[in-house]
Parts: sequence; structure tokens; C-alpha cells
Amino acid sequence: MKYQDTGVDISRAEDALARIRDKVRATRRPEVIGDIGAFGGLFRLTGTDTVLVATTDGVGTKLVLARLLDRHEGVGTDLVHHCVNDALAMGAEPLFFLDYFSTSKLEPEVFARVVGAMADACRAHGCALLGGETAELPGMYAPGTYDLAGFLVGAVARDKILDPASVREGDVLIGLPSTGLHTNGFSLARAICDRAAARAEMDLRSFLVLPRPALRGGTVGDALLAVHRCYLDEVRALRDAATIRSIAHLTGGGWEGNLPRALPPGLGAAVDRESWIVPPLFRMLVEWGGVSDGEAFATWNMGIGLVVVIPANDERAALRALPDAITIGEVERARPNDLRVRWT
Amino acid sequence: MKYQDTGVDISRAEDALARIRDKVRATRRPEVIGDIGAFGGLFRLTGTDTVLVATTDGVGTKLVLARLLDRHEGVGTDLVHHCVNDALAMGAEPLFFLDYFSTSKLEPEVFARVVGAMADACRAHGCALLGGETAELPGMYAPGTYDLAGFLVGAVARDKILDPASVREGDVLIGLPSTGLHTNGFSLARAICDRAAARAEMDLRSFLVLPRPALRGGTVGDALLAVHRCYLDEVRALRDAATIRSIAHLTGGGWEGNLPRALPPGLGAAVDRESWIVPPLFRMLVEWGGVSDGEAFATWNMGIGLVVVIPANDERAALRALPDAITIGEVERARPNDLRVRWT
Repeated sequence: MKYQDTGVDISRAEDALARIRDKVRATRRPEVIGDIGAFGGLFRLTGTDTVLVATTDGVGTKLVLARLLDRHEGVGTDLVHHCVNDALAMGAEPLFFLDYFSTSKLEPEVFARVVGAMADACRAHGCALLGGETAELPGMYAPGTYDLAGFLVGAVARDKILDPASVREGDVLIGLPSTGLHTNGFSLARAICDRAAARAEMDLRSFLVLPRPALRGGTVGDALLAVHRCYLDEVRALRDAATIRSIAHLTGGGWEGNLPRALPPGLGAAVDRESWIVPPLFRMLVEWGGVSDGEAFATWNMGIGLVVVIPANDERAALRALPDAITIGEVERARPNDLRVRWT
Repeated sequence: MKYQDTGVDISRAEDALARIRDKVRATRRPEVIGDIGAFGGLFRLTGTDTVLVATTDGVGTKLVLARLLDRHEGVGTDLVHHCVNDALAMGAEPLFFLDYFSTSKLEPEVFARVVGAMADACRAHGCALLGGETAELPGMYAPGTYDLAGFLVGAVARDKILDPASVREGDVLIGLPSTGLHTNGFSLARAICDRAAARAEMDLRSFLVLPRPALRGGTVGDALLAVHRCYLDEVRALRDAATIRSIAHLTGGGWEGNLPRALPPGLGAAVDRESWIVPPLFRMLVEWGGVSDGEAFATWNMGIGLVVVIPANDERAALRALPDAITIGEVERARPNDLRVRWT
């Protein structure tokens, strides 16, 4: 199975973005730093060395599973963590967050569980929940569904912005484990589970709540809904122990879609897939769906949620500071006409 | 007809918000100024006198009409203008904007029209379009529909924040005309048009594109989709001519839902409904739907999109600075157990 077969086509989004790029560029102000395509937008405040980092995300169709299994808290937490990680990838610390909650008919209890969890996640990471919009839009959403968007502003001193241009050949790639799919590739995962459930002659819900030996007695539903890991503490610890050149948050588009965003033109990543153990959930999805390795690594994070680029000299200190971090590869010269991520 | 009959129940949203208020308050940081309920959240940047103002909005089911009439540009502009006006109501100037565009299946051409128009609106108001998220969520949206959310950050010097606490009894209320419904109350307007079309034995689209003498040959579709007016230039001009005490942006919840947000506890507004002419579109909707005055003014802006509170002494200067502004009433002591907006 391919991601595209499930109705999500990343090339369509790329086509759409290409059409507006010039209009977006035309909105630049002198305070804007960098170009489109970073993990967050940068805006320098006049008269200070503070740069604001702004990022916006959604949770995708993980929302559909949260609904099916009545587990609404997780997606609220997911949204905050996703945004915090994007800010971290720019070198920033979170300041404040706003949410957008939209549905056909508001269910106050569901809303309170989702947005309450967002507030808890904000508090846990020292981020103010500064505002939100709650929209009731009859007829726009399939019954019982809701959509979420999150918006986070962080801050970084101008000379601490993580800049992919600082990355050098021979730098080391440190991987931090993910807790699961985080918030990407759920349309493919759901399509795979739908088919696997049909083959097992089960409804999707029953299939998702079945204990699995491969998951040590856990369920596929739990594994899919595992909360997006927040890397704030890890990145703080790493800042003290090592020089961070750049960070890639592995979200929509998987490895090839995100790791190159942390690298300058001309450089690529040589990544050893054997350096970490792909968690059972991903292996099950790959097997059930007959998903190729190429497709899997271009859709999901496959067990690594954040990749940090550091100088080779700092490798030992970095691994000491982060108990579950793994060296997964290094930066190399990019080979013309090749993908930027080369598997070794 | 009542707004509630169309599936939108503002009391449900209030119930939902009440449930999370304490959790949201628990996320406060020392930089946060003010409490929940303002037109934007305030966040003071350490070491500067700059306060950031953050606001988030949607366009509501105006999106459904934009789709029906293939007029996607307007809603992109609407979203930016709505956010800019909310920032203005706090005293701020816009800095940057981010958008969230979500749909079941992305149509690049529609996306480019919507987001291209946002970019144009951002440029027109000197606001950087700093980022966005485009989500393709199969099965979550009714076919052909999409949702939009906008996030705007503005800035205001600490001593220029518009504070309802500065409003005094006897201050004057200056109204600025709206261009139509702006982006609120569309579920009621659509339900009314649906019924009126059925009575006229027409499909909704034909009903909406029929030239109307009452609209000087214009159509109801055009009147409904008129772009949300941006008051940036007017507020700038007014700042030079008068002292602005506070501003109310009349959006969801109409007059009673918004004007009190610009007043301190204990004060209310005496508004003379005869001081401006309610535009024909509102009169048609009221008549077709048999909508009570109370319901109409609690749902729609009825022709006034922004209310500015100024000292009585500045009235003449304000009206001279703003050619289409109207004095619509004054601030009075609130009467216990009464609504805060009293019609005179």
C-alpha cells in the first residue's frame, strides 16, 4: 500500500504551495529572517536581539482514532508537543500557544477533555495558553468529528537560532526515539488497519483493542494513540552538553521530507537504519500493508522523532547527556540527483 | 427564526469554555497581561516595553457560501481582516500572520485562491505571512468543504494597550459601518436563505444570484460574501485625531456579545439604533426569517462593524477624521440585572 492510495497526496500539497510562493514572499517585512520551508517562521523584534519563532500544526486523522476509541486527551497533548518540537528545531523556547477547535456541533465534554489536555501540556512546558477560537460549523464536518489547529510562538536570541548553514561534512546525527507515529501518516495507518481488520473479520474498534503479543500485550489502538513525544527537556540538556548545529523534527513527509530541512544545500545525511530498532508498531503496519521501506520511511518516523546534528567531537558528551539517544549516522556531501537521505 | 435553531448554540460554547477556564488560568506566565475574554491575548516581552497581542479566528460557514458561489478569494481576505481588527481592538498593529487550511482532498487551485488572497491582504496591511499548515484529512470534512483558521501576532507599546478600565461614564460611542455580516452569523443567514429559496421554489444558488431592487440590482450572494472590512487605516487616523479609550469588534455574539468587552464592570452602553441605517441585507434577512430584533442584534453587527469609545470632548475631531463614522450612543452607568447594551 502507498500513502497516496489513502487519499493523501503530498505532491498535491507541494503543487498548491508552489502556486502561492511568490505572493507569500511579497508579504516579507524587514524583520523576517530566512525563507519558507523552515520548521518555524522567524521574526526579529525591532530594538532587541529577540527573534520570535511562530509555528502552526494540526493533528491529522489521528483525530478519527481518538474519537473511535474515546481518547480525546491525547490529541490535545499531541498538538502542543508537535508545536513545541517545531519551535525547538529553530532553537527557540516556547512562550505562548493558541488553539482553534472546530466542529459541526460542539460537545462541551469532549471539548473540555481536548482543550483541557492542551492546557495541561502548556503548563507542563511553561507555555501560556493565551487564547483560542471555538467554532460551531453545522454541516461542514462529518458527524461527531472535530478539527484542531495549534499555533505557538517561541523566542530565541538572534545568535542562538539554529541555522542549517552551520552544518559541516562529518557532523554526527543523533536520533531521539519517538513514542510512535506521533501525529503523521495516520491516513495510511488507518487504511492498513481497516484492511487488516476486514481480513480478520473484525470491526476496526475490536481490532484496535485486541492485546497483541508483539506489543507485549498492548493494543494497536494504544500504540497508535501514544502521545507525540515532547523533546523540550532533552534539547535543553543537550544545549548544555554539546553544540547543536541544527535539528530536524520528523513529521509529515518522514525522513526525506524533514531531515534535509536541517541541512544546507550540497550536504546530505548517511543514516544507518540498523542503528536503532524499528518499534513493533511500525513493523506490523509495514507487514499488514505490504508497505515498501521507501514508502514507510517517507511517511513515518519509524522510531526516531527528532534528529540533532552536532559536531563529531561532541558525540560522547551528547550521548552521556541523553540516555536514550543514539548515533544514527553522519553528514556527508550530497550526491547529485540522489535523495538527500542515503541509507547505509 | 433563532440562531439556536440552525445548530449553533452560543451557550454550548460558553459551557465548554467554563469547563477549562481554571486549567487555562494555570498556564499563566508572569508575562501574561489581563484575563480571558479580551479580543486578543497579551504577552509582555521581558526587557522591552513591547507587548505582543495574539489572536485566532475562523471564517465560519461563510465558507459554505464561498464554495457554492465559487468565490474563494473573499474568505481568505476575511480571515486576515478579522484577525487584524481583533488586534486593533487591543491597540496593536499587525506584525505577522499564519494560516491553517484543512480539507478532505486538497484542490490546489482552490487553495491557491484562498491562501493567495490571504497573502494579498497581509501585504496590503503590512503584515508578514510567516507560515502555515496545509492538512489533507480524508473523511473528516464533507466532500468539497475546507476549513480555515488564522493566527495573528501584533505589537503594542505597554502604555498604549487599550484598556476598558479607562472608559468613563459619558464617553461617546463612535460606530464604523460594516460591509455586511463580516464573518459571523452565517449559519442563521444560510438557514433563512434556504427557507426563502424554498418558498420561492428556487434552488439556493439561483436565489442567491438573483438581482434585487432592494440591493440596487445587487444579489444576496454578493451582499453575503462582501469582504469583512479592515479598520486599520481608520483606527490609525483616529489615533492621531482623538484619544481612543477602547474598541469593540462586533463579531460572533453581535452587540451584547462584544460591546461589553470594551467596557469596565459597572458601565454599560446606551445605543441609539436610529443613529444609523441598518443596511438592506440585514432587513431582508430579518424579514424573511421572522427574526426578532433582540435575536438579530445578538447575532449580527446590523451595519456597524467596529465601535470606538472616546472622550466626549474628542467627538468632533473623531468624526472629522473618519468621514463615514457615526456617533451611535454613549457610556452610562450599567443598570443591575439589565443587559449591558441598552437600546434608546
